[in-house]
Amino acid sequence: MAARKKPAQPGDRVLGFDPGAAHDAGLAFIGHIRSPWSPGDCPRNLTAARKTGKGARVELRPGYGPGLEGLEPGQHVILIYWLDRDRRDLIAQQPHGDDAPRGTFALRSPVRPNPLGLACVRITALDAAAGVMEIDAVDAFDGTPLLDIKPWRPGIDMPAGI
Amino acid sequence: MAARKKPAQPGDRVLGFDPGAAHDAGLAFIGHIRSPWSPGDCPRNLTAARKTGKGARVELRPGYGPGLEGLEPGQHVILIYWLDRDRRDLIAQQPHGDDAPRGTFALRSPVRPNPLGLACVRITALDAAAGVMEIDAVDAFDGTPLLDIKPWRPGIDMPAGI
Repeated sequence: MAARKKPAQPGDRVLGFDPGAAHDAGLAFIGHIRSPWSPGDCPRNLTAARKTGKGARVELRPGYGPGLEGLEPGQHVILIYWLDRDRRDLIAQQPHGDDAPRGTFALRSPVRPNPLGLACVRITALDAAAGVMEIDAVDAFDGTPLLDIKPWRPGIDMPAGI
Repeated sequence: MAARKKPAQPGDRVLGFDPGAAHDAGLAFIGHIRSPWSPGDCPRNLTAARKTGKGARVELRPGYGPGLEGLEPGQHVILIYWLDRDRRDLIAQQPHGDDAPRGTFALRSPVRPNPLGLACVRITALDAAAGVMEIDAVDAFDGTPLLDIKPWRPGIDMPAGI
């Protein structure tokens, strides 16, 4: 999908180059997220998506289904997906409602050099043979390309000592 | 770096195509991880890396430093990095010490269609002007390419209800 080149807002800072033009490494889309959400009605974040009570689904491309074997309903996984609908060259941004810009790496904005989205979701159903996994919620648009699924592990994915 | 084409082990299952040949989307390396670790002595995981007491450092490429503004020492961030030293076409793998193969998406192995690594680390020092961030620990090799830094958020990055 072509990037939507939103004009920079006051407080935004633009890189002098476009990370979207870089090809330091290449990604393979392993499938897509099917969700109830489109750009007009997508929940603001995963917590808001969970509150709607609406689930979502992961549909893998042919060949990738056996990668789900060993996962179980009730288990939590991290989805990594690709959010390349926005410009990738803003290195500081003015968040809505904030009075000062912040660095992009201090924000969860989808506008970032590599638009990788993360969500920790619960598996509600699984069919490895079909390459399909149902999940409790997601805040990504319907059709969002999927890059990876990882089992959530407290020792890696949480601050130490919590 | 050229992928090291480790032969498949008994129990491994190979895709009929190489995800590493796909270019569905392109990544920009925003910098590199500097760590004490090389392939011969790298801790097995982040918990083991923390126990060594050895910190690590993120060095951003020119231009990206202002993206760190708003982050603070003591805060936890998620690093996303690129682990492309292994083959990308194993969809099921026999973990060391296990008696049965498991799907790649049920494992945290670096051998996966898109070799994205995640670690939740603590910032110990920060210099946005220099584009440098010190962190408590990491289990990635010295020189690992970095793709993104995100502030850790319990509502997105932890199972709901924990």
